[in-house]
Amino acid sequence: MIRNQTINKQVKHRTIRAFKDRNLTDEELETIKQVAAHTSTSMFTQQCSILHITSEEKRSTIRQITNQSYVGANGDLFIFIADLYRNQQIRHQMGKDDGRLHKTDVFMQAVQDTVLSVQNVVNAVESMDLGAVILGSINNDPFKLLQELNLPLMTYPILGLQVGVPDQEPQMKPRLPSEFTFFENTYERKVKVKNLHDYDRIVRTYYDLREANRRIDSFTNQIASAKLDLRETKRDQLLKAIRSQSLCLE
Amino acid sequence: MIRNQTINKQVKHRTIRAFKDRNLTDEELETIKQVAAHTSTSMFTQQCSILHITSEEKRSTIRQITNQSYVGANGDLFIFIADLYRNQQIRHQMGKDDGRLHKTDVFMQAVQDTVLSVQNVVNAVESMDLGAVILGSINNDPFKLLQELNLPLMTYPILGLQVGVPDQEPQMKPRLPSEFTFFENTYERKVKVKNLHDYDRIVRTYYDLREANRRIDSFTNQIASAKLDLRETKRDQLLKAIRSQSLCLE
Repeated sequence: MIRNQTINKQVKHRTIRAFKDRNLTDEELETIKQVAAHTSTSMFTQQCSILHITSEEKRSTIRQITNQSYVGANGDLFIFIADLYRNQQIRHQMGKDDGRLHKTDVFMQAVQDTVLSVQNVVNAVESMDLGAVILGSINNDPFKLLQELNLPLMTYPILGLQVGVPDQEPQMKPRLPSEFTFFENTYERKVKVKNLHDYDRIVRTYYDLREANRRIDSFTNQIASAKLDLRETKRDQLLKAIRSQSLCLE
Repeated sequence: MIRNQTINKQVKHRTIRAFKDRNLTDEELETIKQVAAHTSTSMFTQQCSILHITSEEKRSTIRQITNQSYVGANGDLFIFIADLYRNQQIRHQMGKDDGRLHKTDVFMQAVQDTVLSVQNVVNAVESMDLGAVILGSINNDPFKLLQELNLPLMTYPILGLQVGVPDQEPQMKPRLPSEFTFFENTYERKVKVKNLHDYDRIVRTYYDLREANRRIDSFTNQIASAKLDLRETKRDQLLKAIRSQSLCLE
């Protein structure tokens, strides 16, 4: 494998969930803005915006939504938004209708712009010896989040990102060997749980700092359990919430 | 702004669309696999797979779908797939039903895993002085793509990526200044086209190598034109195609 500064960080990626009590410096913040701005964008439509959440009240509400104590605590909190509002406003002011902006196609382009931007920022953050945790958990209560962020129609908050100076040294979490995820030309349909037993064994040696330093269950047991079981959850409101923003209508 | 090897590449990011006539080395390919494997994953569900397209026939069909001559030409072509099939198979073999796998919530998690992986690979590629172009254009004909890739239900191809040794030196494409995209606490609803005129002027100085070295139109003119106008296009089949894969049903 090839090694350089960037790749060394990437193959040692670990999510950081405990941060020291200091905020990003102006220079670090400016770096994050510049990196986000230079991320690839689908068809040059530039359909991502970022909210930097510094208000203690908003941080607290978002922490409640995510149900994760580290969210909006030490460090800096960002919300990455799929943003078709800006282009809608430009079109209106130039005498045009909404055009394709309500299509799933264009919404997915905006989602892609947004998620590309998240990962680009994560790589920049880690290159500065800072740490980050990507927060899908902002979607735990879609309508409450929309209300709290007071976003206009044609925008949707996709992911949060908490960034700061690491205050923990988690183990690397073992990932599926690429024989299960990387294929040449043809997707391999023969998934056999028994072929995952070696990987399961490796996963069981991983200590999760989130859970008082406990070992976690095997990968296949996790997939076959509560995480993906049917249950009552506000996360089921996601499509309804996206459409309430006038996005992904057809 | 802070500078290091990673960030220097990120703030000089340029999409490469012309590649020299050589494929990735085994070592470069292995590096890409390892970086993809270590990308963040929502709730540790690991719902991304990658197809490396080396078959000339498949490359040719995908080139036709994208209508871009450089796709599947020099360099290496990858298709990044949101993959809920693997976890479905694991659940079935362990005596469980599909659980939440048909929900929009879980589909969006898989899309996020997939797009994070694309950007992580792009950063690795650029760190090796290789170049890349992200291919949203694989979605130009969703059902044809699904047929060509012969993917099982519960998978969806999200983005392509063509990677190789750069054979061009494009200009950097000027991005929206962060005052239009980066906000503190509150989303700025007052978008004024006239405030974008300085940026529009900068955009008009950019030469697009894709179009025989021609200058491109201003940003606001592009947004108010064909790119986002209503028109007949197979891209409108996207949601239908995703649902035909039994994903994002509710």
